Amino acid sequence: MVNDQENQKKRAVTWFKTLRDKICKVCETIEDEHKGPFSEQPPGRFEKTTWQRPDKNDDGGGGEMSIMYGRVFEKIGVNISTVKGTFSEEFRQQIRGATKDGEFWAAGISLVAHPQSPLVPAVHMNTRHIITSKGWFGGGADLTPVYPNNEDTLIFHSSLRDVCDSYGEDYYERFKKWCDQYFYLPHREEARGVGGIFFDDINTGDWEFDFSFIKEVGMAFCDVYPKIVRQHMNLEWTEKQRIHQLERRGRYVEFNLLYDRGTQFGLKTGGNTDAIFMSLPPKVTWK
Amino acid sequence: MVNDQENQKKRAVTWFKTLRDKICKVCETIEDEHKGPFSEQPPGRFEKTTWQRPDKNDDGGGGEMSIMYGRVFEKIGVNISTVKGTFSEEFRQQIRGATKDGEFWAAGISLVAHPQSPLVPAVHMNTRHIITSKGWFGGGADLTPVYPNNEDTLIFHSSLRDVCDSYGEDYYERFKKWCDQYFYLPHREEARGVGGIFFDDINTGDWEFDFSFIKEVGMAFCDVYPKIVRQHMNLEWTEKQRIHQLERRGRYVEFNLLYDRGTQFGLKTGGNTDAIFMSLPPKVTWK
Repeated sequence: MVNDQENQKKRAVTWFKTLRDKICKVCETIEDEHKGPFSEQPPGRFEKTTWQRPDKNDDGGGGEMSIMYGRVFEKIGVNISTVKGTFSEEFRQQIRGATKDGEFWAAGISLVAHPQSPLVPAVHMNTRHIITSKGWFGGGADLTPVYPNNEDTLIFHSSLRDVCDSYGEDYYERFKKWCDQYFYLPHREEARGVGGIFFDDINTGDWEFDFSFIKEVGMAFCDVYPKIVRQHMNLEWTEKQRIHQLERRGRYVEFNLLYDRGTQFGLKTGGNTDAIFMSLPPKVTWK
Repeated sequence: MVNDQENQKKRAVTWFKTLRDKICKVCETIEDEHKGPFSEQPPGRFEKTTWQRPDKNDDGGGGEMSIMYGRVFEKIGVNISTVKGTFSEEFRQQIRGATKDGEFWAAGISLVAHPQSPLVPAVHMNTRHIITSKGWFGGGADLTPVYPNNEDTLIFHSSLRDVCDSYGEDYYERFKKWCDQYFYLPHREEARGVGGIFFDDINTGDWEFDFSFIKEVGMAFCDVYPKIVRQHMNLEWTEKQRIHQLERRGRYVEFNLLYDRGTQFGLKTGGNTDAIFMSLPPKVTWK
């Protein structure tokens, strides 16, 4: 029976790649379908860049960064990576199960979309598998509309709730709360967006069960976000709405640089700077 | 003889206000003189906002934030503040001479200018007086050109060197090096700009001497930066140069949110968020 950790790693890596391909495909389809503002421009296409993690043994892994600058998606980045190495001594103390020598293996997918239209919500999704002396999954998805509306918020949350409810009675409540607490800007006393789910340290003892949950989170995202985009992408917006969008994006930058653990993890483990900052909005203003 | 600490505090506060007024005046004069791009628009004028530091005893101090959106200065903010209170237990450990109860008093001026023209360097200047169980001065000034040129770099550095040389043989060398080390983005392996000086923990035991140094740093800045601005402000620039400027401003944001101690100090001591983020550029892009 092939169920050893090496095989699990391989399956996780393959899944993150599959999900990346699915997401890129649906987003390019949305670009093709678009009939709203900027539809006189050609539909966007992802461009892929591969990167290697610098490592003295040339074995630190790397990733693939796919970025599209389109007519619906002003900037959307989807990054997959598989890295291994050694945590710095300082960082080691913050990591669950970090061994004495600080060795780790990590693979994952992360996505951030910044639409042209202030009426189409920005979104973030990430799932990951990390192995130190322990192994666990983490991830989440959260929606950041410039102009929140109940319908979008409801279908986004329901979709994630449906997945959570199949895996644990308390999953949704816990992960939604975790998301609200995590994506919060204390200096602004503001939530980053309308939330979603956020989770870490997922290890029930049944790897298949946990991996299945991670896959379903990815698939639910890949289904629900395009619905929300298609709902609004063809609408006209005003200059005032655009100005407000660019200001709100400032909050996104503030969160990512001041508080985001993924950003810190990437910077402290010698991740690829372009891939880490792929999440930053293309245009931003501060008053 | 009036030389007690309360009188010293009062004199420092008065100086920061005087310097603020000088700087605002010279920058408004520059706006008036301007004959280059955007000179069809009216010259900019500073608008002042006062803020109070929230405190349960209504005695935490506050500040005055002056911001101008002009035709030379796309955004320039000059903030003076006088705050007192108690450091959080976590933050206390990082502060020189923090007393057991964490009481502090701090006053200072900080300035960041983001010019319209990619040919006019951005700049930062800050001087401050902090009192815990000890008292000291800190500050610095550094230049961030989009397109560095030797002449600007030279006159900026020389001006600060002249001040330093009058106060300590090793001042310039130490403070220049400190600046280069401080304004560095490890994740980009890049300096933020062309440097200047940065210093902290200035306490020679002679308050008058140290205060005099602080005043001269402010005056040197107020003299040299306008010269650099006037040198380039009337020149035309290209769209390509403007695009490059907006991208370089991203590095400024990255530094301020990821590494700047002033930002951390402000956020962790309940400072005014608008005043803290006054330093952020008005328009920024990330690829």
